[in-house]
Amino acid sequence: MNIFSTPVFPELSNRWSALQQAMAASGADACISTVYVNVFYLTDTIYNGYFYLPAEGSPLLFVKRPAGLNGDGVHYIRKPEQIVEFLNEKGMALPRNLMVEVDELPYSEVERLKMVFGVDKLSNATAAIRRLREIKSEYEIGLLRHSGALHAACYAEIPGLYRPGMTDLDLSIEIERLFRRKGATGHFRVFGQTMELFMGSVIAGDNAVNASPYDFAMGGAGSHKSMPVSANGTRIEPGCTVMVDMGGTFTGYISDMSRVFSLGSVNELAYKAHQTALEIQSDIEAAARPGVAAADLYNLALTKVKQSELTSFFMGYRQQAGFVGHGIGIQINESPVLAPRSREVLQAGHVFALEPKFVIPGVGAVGVENSYAVHDSGIEKLTLLEEGIIAL
Amino acid sequence: MNIFSTPVFPELSNRWSALQQAMAASGADACISTVYVNVFYLTDTIYNGYFYLPAEGSPLLFVKRPAGLNGDGVHYIRKPEQIVEFLNEKGMALPRNLMVEVDELPYSEVERLKMVFGVDKLSNATAAIRRLREIKSEYEIGLLRHSGALHAACYAEIPGLYRPGMTDLDLSIEIERLFRRKGATGHFRVFGQTMELFMGSVIAGDNAVNASPYDFAMGGAGSHKSMPVSANGTRIEPGCTVMVDMGGTFTGYISDMSRVFSLGSVNELAYKAHQTALEIQSDIEAAARPGVAAADLYNLALTKVKQSELTSFFMGYRQQAGFVGHGIGIQINESPVLAPRSREVLQAGHVFALEPKFVIPGVGAVGVENSYAVHDSGIEKLTLLEEGIIAL
Repeated sequence: MNIFSTPVFPELSNRWSALQQAMAASGADACISTVYVNVFYLTDTIYNGYFYLPAEGSPLLFVKRPAGLNGDGVHYIRKPEQIVEFLNEKGMALPRNLMVEVDELPYSEVERLKMVFGVDKLSNATAAIRRLREIKSEYEIGLLRHSGALHAACYAEIPGLYRPGMTDLDLSIEIERLFRRKGATGHFRVFGQTMELFMGSVIAGDNAVNASPYDFAMGGAGSHKSMPVSANGTRIEPGCTVMVDMGGTFTGYISDMSRVFSLGSVNELAYKAHQTALEIQSDIEAAARPGVAAADLYNLALTKVKQSELTSFFMGYRQQAGFVGHGIGIQINESPVLAPRSREVLQAGHVFALEPKFVIPGVGAVGVENSYAVHDSGIEKLTLLEEGIIAL
Repeated sequence: MNIFSTPVFPELSNRWSALQQAMAASGADACISTVYVNVFYLTDTIYNGYFYLPAEGSPLLFVKRPAGLNGDGVHYIRKPEQIVEFLNEKGMALPRNLMVEVDELPYSEVERLKMVFGVDKLSNATAAIRRLREIKSEYEIGLLRHSGALHAACYAEIPGLYRPGMTDLDLSIEIERLFRRKGATGHFRVFGQTMELFMGSVIAGDNAVNASPYDFAMGGAGSHKSMPVSANGTRIEPGCTVMVDMGGTFTGYISDMSRVFSLGSVNELAYKAHQTALEIQSDIEAAARPGVAAADLYNLALTKVKQSELTSFFMGYRQQAGFVGHGIGIQINESPVLAPRSREVLQAGHVFALEPKFVIPGVGAVGVENSYAVHDSGIEKLTLLEEGIIAL
């Protein structure tokens, strides 16, 4: 591996320049990144070690594992103290203001880095890199487009996976296999420590009413108390829905998409709620473009929900999620968030999932979710498949 | 939920007392835990919020999500500032020395807790709770025994999953489905930020030579650069092995087990290495009992490896792992570690995986892995299945 001579080098080089601009803005002399998602973003490689970017010039890649990496800037170390030794040997100044992943790295690791580098001041690398990652390049949008296409292709095959008598867990397992067969790594990356999920969520009938500790749009009781989310073995019955919301982990960039399936028709309330979700999607699609406030998009949803008198079912029943969309990328919960108090404004390069959903007791979850890229010219839907309630 | 009246209450009550002893030893006035694995250990429930244990008396459960928890000690909050408000209202003293998960919680979250509580001193809740979790109760060993039995039952069905022409990735996908069918949640919990894995590792032939950034016993290139470990699509050929090392995520407590499969016979070196792995296992089984140093167990392995002149193949080829066993529990990498510089001594209640393995270029990985519980009377193997190279 030599990241300075890979096809993605121009892409990476742009990211480093943008990070150096963020460093300059916060007065940081260097940035050190060790969290895998950020190292992957900055080097197109997952390695255990540190990515070290000075205020000017090229990055240094301090690698613990794997063995065998080589190329410009790669130096093997066992511990961060050796970074300081290396900088001293090369006559490079030690940073006084070091940009560190303070919202991701454990307290004790940051304390160690402070001591090792003898820094006076920390800047927030988590915030800076999240802001960079939020705006996707054409290359990254291409990866998300590819994930979205595979995601939709999998969903098209779901009716063929259904067998009479299945539970939501049975169907989830077959969908998981299908995703893996189509190339999903299965590994679902989230920002922060408050969300856990296996490959995604498949929820039948009243399992949708079960509240989860995790801040996903929908809950579900899960198959074991150690993992309380998604399928819990609820049998798929006529008149009930199955909400399928898997992570599209095909390219390192996760597409997000939900579709609702049912056995026979659902009641009028559920049908009305599903149609309302589609109208919310249309309203937001029509409004979404660079310069529009994310909170305003959320409010479009809320207005429609209130008009339709569906407030008590919106984004959950026993527990309601406080957003209707979220950024996606290397992790499933990036910026921007479409929520009432969001201060974010849509920009070209944003990629977000929009997921207006309702939970109707006695029926299950209804609604829709698609992934969108924001361009100067408008938004592009990345997950194309019929959006009605699909017959199993 | 009322954790004071569940069947596991006596179990939880013991854990709280043990944690209070650890708090007393470090002078902590209270312990606050918010990391899911620890909250699960301390309450038998996954919730988003804080578990707050004073130096004496019963814990308080400050819950953000899910909605609907109730019972003694449960109080709903939106932010940690409300914990301080609650303690003030009840006339409870605020802690000066607060035990916090400093090796798990992000730097900025710990800084926030320090400010919110106005503490003078932090104690290390990560270290304290890891030491408690290291020693399993009979109840916990029962869960691991159950995971191990299901794990072995899955492995017994692997030859029936093989179809001619399969790659390691094809076989992995069928094994993943089998695990899910038998009740695995699939969610693989690791301590620290340096390991990532989907459900486990299935590696055919020379894919075993590929080094990984992650500190697992074996590597593998993975199916995408964003997830560089395990199966990479290597075709299963006659004379090659497939090493299967899945996580047994059946009960919230993860069993660990590996078996080697092959299509036809393997070469003499691979066969010899496999036999040596079994001998290492026998040597360590014979020596392992309370009071024995974990480092001494590692050295038993190393002695046999040197005698057999297999040093360059032991625990990897292009990159070699520096341990031969590790504790298991809610996470896959608990204490003790069987490594040369381990200072740990085996105790009753330890549950560990022992995984002597070799990588033979041109053949693949060989060796064995089983999970063991340590009792006063000796060790108990939890993962029972034939240990030779199993024909596909």
